[in-house]
Amino acid sequence: MRDGNRENTSTRPIKIQRNFTKYAPGSVLIEFGDTKVICTASIEEKVPPFLRFSGKGWLTAEYSMLPSSTGDRVSREVKKGKPSGRTSEIQRLIGRSLRGILDLELLGERTIYIDADVIQADGGTRTASISGAMVALADAVDHLLEQKLIDQNPIKEWIAAISVGKFNNQLISDLCYAEDSNAELDMNVVMTESGQIIEIQGTAEKAPFSIEEMNELVLMAKQNISDIISVTKPVKSN
Amino acid sequence: MRDGNRENTSTRPIKIQRNFTKYAPGSVLIEFGDTKVICTASIEEKVPPFLRFSGKGWLTAEYSMLPSSTGDRVSREVKKGKPSGRTSEIQRLIGRSLRGILDLELLGERTIYIDADVIQADGGTRTASISGAMVALADAVDHLLEQKLIDQNPIKEWIAAISVGKFNNQLISDLCYAEDSNAELDMNVVMTESGQIIEIQGTAEKAPFSIEEMNELVLMAKQNISDIISVTKPVKSN
Amino acid sequence: MRDGNRENTSTRPIKIQRNFTKYAPGSVLIEFGDTKVICTASIEEKVPPFLRFSGKGWLTAEYSMLPSSTGDRVSREVKKGKPSGRTSEIQRLIGRSLRGILDLELLGERTIYIDADVIQADGGTRTASISGAMVALADAVDHLLEQKLIDQNPIKEWIAAISVGKFNNQLISDLCYAEDSNAELDMNVVMTESGQIIEIQGTAEKAPFSIEEMNELVLMAKQNISDIISVTKPVKSN
Amino acid sequence: MRDGNRENTSTRPIKIQRNFTKYAPGSVLIEFGDTKVICTASIEEKVPPFLRFSGKGWLTAEYSMLPSSTGDRVSREVKKGKPSGRTSEIQRLIGRSLRGILDLELLGERTIYIDADVIQADGGTRTASISGAMVALADAVDHLLEQKLIDQNPIKEWIAAISVGKFNNQLISDLCYAEDSNAELDMNVVMTESGQIIEIQGTAEKAPFSIEEMNELVLMAKQNISDIISVTKPVKSN
Amino acid sequence: MRDGNRENTSTRPIKIQRNFTKYAPGSVLIEFGDTKVICTASIEEKVPPFLRFSGKGWLTAEYSMLPSSTGDRVSREVKKGKPSGRTSEIQRLIGRSLRGILDLELLGERTIYIDADVIQADGGTRTASISGAMVALADAVDHLLEQKLIDQNPIKEWIAAISVGKFNNQLISDLCYAEDSNAELDMNVVMTESGQIIEIQGTAEKAPFSIEEMNELVLMAKQNISDIISVTKPVKSN
Amino acid sequence: MRDGNRENTSTRPIKIQRNFTKYAPGSVLIEFGDTKVICTASIEEKVPPFLRFSGKGWLTAEYSMLPSSTGDRVSREVKKGKPSGRTSEIQRLIGRSLRGILDLELLGERTIYIDADVIQADGGTRTASISGAMVALADAVDHLLEQKLIDQNPIKEWIAAISVGKFNNQLISDLCYAEDSNAELDMNVVMTESGQIIEIQGTAEKAPFSIEEMNELVLMAKQNISDIISVTKPVKSN
Repeated sequence: MRDGNRENTSTRPIKIQRNFTKYAPGSVLIEFGDTKVICTASIEEKVPPFLRFSGKGWLTAEYSMLPSSTGDRVSREVKKGKPSGRTSEIQRLIGRSLRGILDLELLGERTIYIDADVIQADGGTRTASISGAMVALADAVDHLLEQKLIDQNPIKEWIAAISVGKFNNQLISDLCYAEDSNAELDMNVVMTESGQIIEIQGTAEKAPFSIEEMNELVLMAKQNISDIISVTKPVKSN
Repeated sequence: MRDGNRENTSTRPIKIQRNFTKYAPGSVLIEFGDTKVICTASIEEKVPPFLRFSGKGWLTAEYSMLPSSTGDRVSREVKKGKPSGRTSEIQRLIGRSLRGILDLELLGERTIYIDADVIQADGGTRTASISGAMVALADAVDHLLEQKLIDQNPIKEWIAAISVGKFNNQLISDLCYAEDSNAELDMNVVMTESGQIIEIQGTAEKAPFSIEEMNELVLMAKQNISDIISVTKPVKSN
Repeated sequence: MRDGNRENTSTRPIKIQRNFTKYAPGSVLIEFGDTKVICTASIEEKVPPFLRFSGKGWLTAEYSMLPSSTGDRVSREVKKGKPSGRTSEIQRLIGRSLRGILDLELLGERTIYIDADVIQADGGTRTASISGAMVALADAVDHLLEQKLIDQNPIKEWIAAISVGKFNNQLISDLCYAEDSNAELDMNVVMTESGQIIEIQGTAEKAPFSIEEMNELVLMAKQNISDIISVTKPVKSN
Repeated sequence: MRDGNRENTSTRPIKIQRNFTKYAPGSVLIEFGDTKVICTASIEEKVPPFLRFSGKGWLTAEYSMLPSSTGDRVSREVKKGKPSGRTSEIQRLIGRSLRGILDLELLGERTIYIDADVIQADGGTRTASISGAMVALADAVDHLLEQKLIDQNPIKEWIAAISVGKFNNQLISDLCYAEDSNAELDMNVVMTESGQIIEIQGTAEKAPFSIEEMNELVLMAKQNISDIISVTKPVKSN
Repeated sequence: MRDGNRENTSTRPIKIQRNFTKYAPGSVLIEFGDTKVICTASIEEKVPPFLRFSGKGWLTAEYSMLPSSTGDRVSREVKKGKPSGRTSEIQRLIGRSLRGILDLELLGERTIYIDADVIQADGGTRTASISGAMVALADAVDHLLEQKLIDQNPIKEWIAAISVGKFNNQLISDLCYAEDSNAELDMNVVMTESGQIIEIQGTAEKAPFSIEEMNELVLMAKQNISDIISVTKPVKSN
Repeated sequence: MRDGNRENTSTRPIKIQRNFTKYAPGSVLIEFGDTKVICTASIEEKVPPFLRFSGKGWLTAEYSMLPSSTGDRVSREVKKGKPSGRTSEIQRLIGRSLRGILDLELLGERTIYIDADVIQADGGTRTASISGAMVALADAVDHLLEQKLIDQNPIKEWIAAISVGKFNNQLISDLCYAEDSNAELDMNVVMTESGQIIEIQGTAEKAPFSIEEMNELVLMAKQNISDIISVTKPVKSN
């Protein structure tokens, strides 16, 4: 049996706390079990050079782990002067995923900055970040609507993300750190509430895997994502 | 009258939440009104090169603001590749202040990393960081004592810190951001529970100030620090 | 009809030129149509610190585009002082993919450096790099066997990679730059000669996609990869 | 007795040599005993972005030690790619101190760059730098007046700076390196000729200190600063 | 006898392959024996800030060695975040040499980027780079003429470059790596087809050398450069 | 007539002040007219990794211009995080030149750091730096001999350097800034007291030059260098 008497196909308890800090228009604390991430959405009324005068907006994401978020303290990336390859990869994934459901023309010429700062890391920080950032983004968009800065909601669909994988020869959902660091294969899936894929990344960690295993994992992820959205999506929103 | 009906010589409400995250042996969330800082103390069983084979330990501190912690999102320092001058100054101040009451020989050849990560900033982040880091440090030291890695407490005295200053021609304590950014003078004081000075930094922001004003501010700070310690210092500790 | 009278499910002409330069034990020029990459495998008789005294070897990869490899000259990354997020992502992908079929214990305590330097870029540079690096790796391993530095071949299976996607609402293989930059979805697949998955990365570029589309693309990729390996794998090898 | 038969409350011999180099409008060599600093003030006819169209000027300061300025050669900061925390702290202190007596509106939209380059370091380099930079600033301002680029002197008061501290349990002025590196407490004071404080920074190096000690040191500093200004301030100036 | 039965005063076989890649208007592979360099010339329709509105164009050069180009793999410079001193020196030399025969007014307000990427290094990479870059530059200029972006050829003379030196007490031409790394003196000469000097750099590696030796080497270089130009300069060009 | 009634073949007045600062064993201020450089030689009792256990020493050089050394203030290189190409080139030249007359085996396993810090720049800073560094090096070597750390002088010959060139169609020596920045050709020559060449670097700035002009300039340089050495070389030394 998994930690916390979890089924192979179950996620850990998901919690969301909105308005976690007061300055950003979207600010949530999301928890996937012991993984805790502060996700915020801030708005800047300008766009990167390549979009100037295009009428379109932009969304970009940054990700960081607090030094004390893991068992062994991790060094701040500013010390090395640049984000690690892993950080680059994660922040690009978060940004792409949310741009995937955002109508950048309806957003107008402004930029939404997503910040995902992990304060406690027990596996699945990138999928928790995407799931939490979705909530922060929706709150920031509501702020734009309330301020009448836009008049139509640019969010096309709600998304969430989950990690699935194979551990001890079993296919399991929402791997905690102990499972993740020994998994045979690791797959991150980002999906919409209607079950369409936004991003899928599967990696053989110890051995190649079959197309059939890939399919079973995607179906597990689809169910998990539906469960997560039922927690994270406010009834009123969108 | 100041915001929240505060007296000129009063601090904002001080709150401390210990064991805020689970991996670092010392981890607190400290609040000075709307200023909120996660302060952690992590232990590494080695020392910087200049202390190897010296029998002495070390304490060093790092400080950062989350991008969403302020009204206008602040850029991550990793983007510029180096900490700003302000950040360098603050992390040196936090480190010096805590080393000032730590017996590095009793600590033994290990390093304590203090991390102060501001999640919401409304003035006084450096003094909140020092006051919170003191608590995290004490909890990390208790952990070392419990693990029998050391047998004598290396903390010589408890400290806290406060900012005082002159605003609208009045001497006031614990300036919030609105006061701080328009103050005539700004002073940060770090003191022990016995009222001795660890660090004092006073800066004329708009006009030079007199030795008499300096003295009055130091006495106000002494009272505030005593009040803060009565909140932050656990009854059992040290 | 696609450029060069290509079927939707066909790759561009694949060419491989071994021993392209003379110093590295593995050195090939691989071409996927107009995409040309120099892939080399160099051997260093030491391992990163985390593997010292482990008896295990390592493989790491670096990727770069020559400034003149694209229509508009791209700036050298050394000018900005760090690899871009895209470069980090690609070099991590190449390294993970090849480690996925390499027995690091049989390799022994040495490091293989894969370098993929794109001299002409017309889409699919990362999948051409993986497919070419496989050949360079095999040649470097042969060199180790000939030199009797190892006595058993650490390569478990041969791999290749292909990009597939949706363009103009059609599912297509091996996207050239003009197709790739306007694709609705983009998927990179790395597979073994036995049809097992090493890595799959699918991204919705313009709209989410269905699980069914994902499956069809994976099957197309499987056929393409089999075709590529028939070109890249020498008859004698492994 | 201190080195050179100095009283506890005396500074080392102070010397100033104006027009030390020929290109900057203000250029001095200042000596506090064996501490020697080249201080220059250069003028650029533009301001940082945050002051554009404000009608106000700016003053900023940079500080550096020549590699050969100390007993053990110090590494150039360009090698590490960024100024150390200590350097950041000092250049911010110099800039703040001089802006504290400068009317930025009278200066007009131009920037004064202060450069303090230490050619020989025997303690007190930051206070020598401030005291010397005051002279260079005044000469650069005279240049602006002579050139009729401004018609009113923007310098409100003359300043100087001194370090005071406790060494061998005695309160002393103007610590040389041997005293400074073993001091129990170290305090830097910047004051105007009228005895008002511009900046005070006191640090417990070995033990906390009392409010009374702080007061005595400030009074010693006041006398020293008055003495320094009698050397550095030209009779004609301001 | 030298490697390949070469005379002391002979170069290695020189080969040039034009249109080596397809995107840059000038792209060649040049070979001096086993030294192989891809030299390209790209055109950007703008100039650096110091030339804006001057009516003049610019030419700048960048140089890099592929990691696998040498016997021991060389680390990519992006890893250290900056080009080495050697690289800086070489790219400045290439740029200066070609600007030396280019009429920047006739070029008009555009920039030509020369990229020299060494794919195999056996000594003399900088002189091969200059000789090959000359060809790429001429092809890029022809492109500008064909496109009628300029109507007069800005190339004043054709150049090439060679390294000469003293090895085993003999004066020799076109040193390969084994000779170069043990040479007593090393001299790089860039000359025009009419035998005028564009750049000469001579360095005593093991012992100072006489003015007479310098003269003899320059004459050897003159002959070699004439030979190289007979290979690299197309009959039709300029 | 040139500035200061100088002949075409004359240098500006050369001055040397030894023991300019007190910590480095070699420390001089050298002046070539208005060009003033502090040159120091510091000794560190270890060598770079590639020389460990070789019995040989090393010499390396660093060069910098003080921001106020020129008419328009130059930015500190630490701000950009790396030395400019020009700086790299100059410090490599200084180091090579002095290693050219130093017996590294007699020096023993230690490193001599040459620092050349330009405090006033009026052309010829690199040749003044080499000429001054020679004196600092000799003083540092004398220090090693006096301390009996070595028993034989590792300096083989004394050197100096000069810039020569063509300006207004005349061949001239020791170009000041006004001449240098408009020269048709610029040549830096480093020679020994016996008239042997250590380094020669000639660059066509406006037009190619002939072998005859090169020869005449080298002979002018030879005379100038002889004159400089008569000023810089102490009677007792070497």
